[in-house]
Amino acid sequence: MSGSGYVRIIRMIPPALGNNTADVQRLEQALRKELDTGYVHVPWHLVPELSARLRVWDWQAKVVLFRDRRSLRVVDLLDPADSAPVLGAALDIGTTRMVISLVDLETGETLAETGFDNPQADIGPDVLTRIHHARTPAGRAQLQDLAVTAVNRHLAQLCKENRAAPDRVFLLAGAGNTAMTHLFAGLPAFGIIQEPYIPCTNIPDTLAAQRIGLVMHPEGQVFLFPNIGSYFGGDLLAGILAADLDLKEDPCIMVDVGTNAEIVLGSKDWLMACAGAAGPALESGVSQIGMTAKPGVIDRVAVDPSTRELVIHTIEDQPPVGICGSGMIDLAAALFFTGRIDIRGKLVPDACEGRLKDQDGIPAFVLVDGADSGTGNPICLSQVDLNSLTSAKAAMYTILEVIVAQTAGLAFEDLETFYVAGTFGSFINPKSAISIGMLPDIPVDRFQVLGNTSLKGARQVLTDPDAFDRIMAVKDTITYIELNVNQSFMTLFSGAKFYPHTDRSRFPSVQI
Amino acid sequence: MSGSGYVRIIRMIPPALGNNTADVQRLEQALRKELDTGYVHVPWHLVPELSARLRVWDWQAKVVLFRDRRSLRVVDLLDPADSAPVLGAALDIGTTRMVISLVDLETGETLAETGFDNPQADIGPDVLTRIHHARTPAGRAQLQDLAVTAVNRHLAQLCKENRAAPDRVFLLAGAGNTAMTHLFAGLPAFGIIQEPYIPCTNIPDTLAAQRIGLVMHPEGQVFLFPNIGSYFGGDLLAGILAADLDLKEDPCIMVDVGTNAEIVLGSKDWLMACAGAAGPALESGVSQIGMTAKPGVIDRVAVDPSTRELVIHTIEDQPPVGICGSGMIDLAAALFFTGRIDIRGKLVPDACEGRLKDQDGIPAFVLVDGADSGTGNPICLSQVDLNSLTSAKAAMYTILEVIVAQTAGLAFEDLETFYVAGTFGSFINPKSAISIGMLPDIPVDRFQVLGNTSLKGARQVLTDPDAFDRIMAVKDTITYIELNVNQSFMTLFSGAKFYPHTDRSRFPSVQI
Repeated sequence: MSGSGYVRIIRMIPPALGNNTADVQRLEQALRKELDTGYVHVPWHLVPELSARLRVWDWQAKVVLFRDRRSLRVVDLLDPADSAPVLGAALDIGTTRMVISLVDLETGETLAETGFDNPQADIGPDVLTRIHHARTPAGRAQLQDLAVTAVNRHLAQLCKENRAAPDRVFLLAGAGNTAMTHLFAGLPAFGIIQEPYIPCTNIPDTLAAQRIGLVMHPEGQVFLFPNIGSYFGGDLLAGILAADLDLKEDPCIMVDVGTNAEIVLGSKDWLMACAGAAGPALESGVSQIGMTAKPGVIDRVAVDPSTRELVIHTIEDQPPVGICGSGMIDLAAALFFTGRIDIRGKLVPDACEGRLKDQDGIPAFVLVDGADSGTGNPICLSQVDLNSLTSAKAAMYTILEVIVAQTAGLAFEDLETFYVAGTFGSFINPKSAISIGMLPDIPVDRFQVLGNTSLKGARQVLTDPDAFDRIMAVKDTITYIELNVNQSFMTLFSGAKFYPHTDRSRFPSVQI
Repeated sequence: MSGSGYVRIIRMIPPALGNNTADVQRLEQALRKELDTGYVHVPWHLVPELSARLRVWDWQAKVVLFRDRRSLRVVDLLDPADSAPVLGAALDIGTTRMVISLVDLETGETLAETGFDNPQADIGPDVLTRIHHARTPAGRAQLQDLAVTAVNRHLAQLCKENRAAPDRVFLLAGAGNTAMTHLFAGLPAFGIIQEPYIPCTNIPDTLAAQRIGLVMHPEGQVFLFPNIGSYFGGDLLAGILAADLDLKEDPCIMVDVGTNAEIVLGSKDWLMACAGAAGPALESGVSQIGMTAKPGVIDRVAVDPSTRELVIHTIEDQPPVGICGSGMIDLAAALFFTGRIDIRGKLVPDACEGRLKDQDGIPAFVLVDGADSGTGNPICLSQVDLNSLTSAKAAMYTILEVIVAQTAGLAFEDLETFYVAGTFGSFINPKSAISIGMLPDIPVDRFQVLGNTSLKGARQVLTDPDAFDRIMAVKDTITYIELNVNQSFMTLFSGAKFYPHTDRSRFPSVQI
């Protein structure tokens, strides 16, 4: 046998009078032995042609496999000399953006990738509107069709660019939050938002692509990541997989700074997670701050050490048009270091040296004058924006403290690696985030940016046959912590609303 | 939960904040618990409507299930108040005749049954011709279509007579020999007759009815009995199931007197089987003797104790037109008891008192004069017919001796029950068969006629969820004995060609 992952060249012992196992079971036995696995399922559509093929191919075959909950399934049998690419597609089912990765299943290589807006946004930009729309069968079908049609179109385009037909895509693995996964698959989603918050399914399992209208190999198989509940989706399981959290010797943490702060903590021995909205304290999540990254957006702010002036960087070095979340964190850190805000996060008029302006009675710091801006208007950070940022950073720190210290009984220093997942997190400068007390004060080199973990996890499912069991094991063993916004939380939260914290000893590296 | 077999009314615990398992997994858990089973598979086609249904039905459902190799599969979810019949079909895939039984899956009751000629006989009456015809894909499709179309027509008719739609047939279980099962399912069969005699598959497993063109419930499932090899088919496994051989405390034997003598011997602890043609000695199998049963055929022959005259019985008491196998065995026994044949099976002219006639130089015993016959011609048994019968009965006894005594090391007296399977066997009078030395001399009440065991076994698969695992266990553990027609066999065979046997001590009950 050669090959790896889900594509293997299998050699069988030819039948003889003393070895009269039937053709199908001969293949099954060879696969079981070579892959050291239990039950192998050869689906019926392959059976009628199997005998002739195995004989023509002299008892060899290139076998495309995939997993479901109980077996290793043969998706197709190919001529061992077939040299056309054997493809898979990894899919990030994002609320706003979807991303497809075209993967060579034989090499594990990513051949191409494309991102596009989730066309369900035409129905509603937010998940709630879409879930309400999906209450009728027609609305549900419409949402599903929008998403699947877009995936089919972009997948076909990726195939074309790689000179392959869509029927060479044998597998697709998709990860998204619970609601998005349900809407993509055409499942009712209303239970997710209505007490007692019950998804239609926790485990979509492997299913035929045709059942949900995906255009790929006619017997192609689709894996949609399971969820652990309405507010703990497959995207987070994909993240755990992408970070290998379930394989770590020492505890690590992964924080997905999205609409909700989703946190997973643990190692190979135990995992705990906390996800979902955390009440009014987190109403303005970190990712809500600032604008979406695009050319001209200020993504980095630094302090010139000699002049103490603020130095901005914009995406693609275009004239500044606004400021995004990572820029905002940098800016807050810079304002704090230069004494322009105090430890309560309030603008200090004396220190702002004429860069303050009044916006309807609220002071605002002018970062870029109208004359230097790409829009003609000044780019400001108002005290209101700052208050939101202060709440958000305090909430993030408090949640981390509750999970790491109070729940797991660990010190932040015990964390071997601090993974930051999600697009937003990718751009955060950990040094700035520590400076304002959003992230704990651990060595900067322990922070690791993971990028799009939904896509990475989905890709892993396509290329690593162990991934399936790992996902199911994580799903069955992870402890879900309901974040309790009680008096104790609010007390911690109040302490965290200072820069960097009321308890300065927690941030020894932050020197001003 | 109520119900039995594969139809159950399942009650689930309604979801709550503290019990937020998703709808699909809630059903799975309830099924796993109530059926005390492992993995339950809810196929994708049921998932989109499942949430709404369970809520409308107040967390109850009538669930139709079925087994495959690795899971219990939900075939459909019905309203718990649905009172329409939930049907299954058992199918005997015979070479000559096919029989369908319509079964109420909730009660296990057989509602109706119909037999019809296998329309594949239009291509060829024998299996060999059909297998050759199936060498081309078109020929294979034609044979499959002939059989499946006939099943669809007769099944629809049975449904109609029972005021049910064919889509109320959720399950079908079929048993036939290896070749017939392959041809029914559209699988290539040539490997079965060509050295090294390899079937396409040993285990068709449970498959979608649509995949082989069966018209029943759109997601209906079909189980075709596995085989153990080209010459040990699913019909024999069905027979083992029907006789409960695999559950017996003490050894029993089952003999299917068909075209080949197929024998299974054993108990819950071990099973061995011998099947297939046994070379030239068995060229004229027992079932080849005599004509097919129909009105007017002589099926029983007795001796009037006072006159020593032969008394015949015909089917439906019609004027005699011929003699069938069971009648032939009776006749041979009667001729032997009245001294009309000697211990070598040769007609004794002096004892036949003018009932002998010459047929082209060969003596024949006139059982019915032309004047009394339904055809106008006399009904005779020639010495050639008798020689065939003698060979056939000797072969049967010899095979039994080889299997029971030589291979298993048992005495015939050790056999608790002697099951006679197959249509032909149903009519044999064990007393006559013992008298001529075809069956061993054990108490007559130990013989038990099973009738159509393919149909019975298939019906068991539909109604008894344990049947699936029993079949797989038997398949994996039975020992197949290759019948070796060597010098030792021929020596035993020679001894068995006498009436009842050269060794009279083997037949103490036979007194003449």
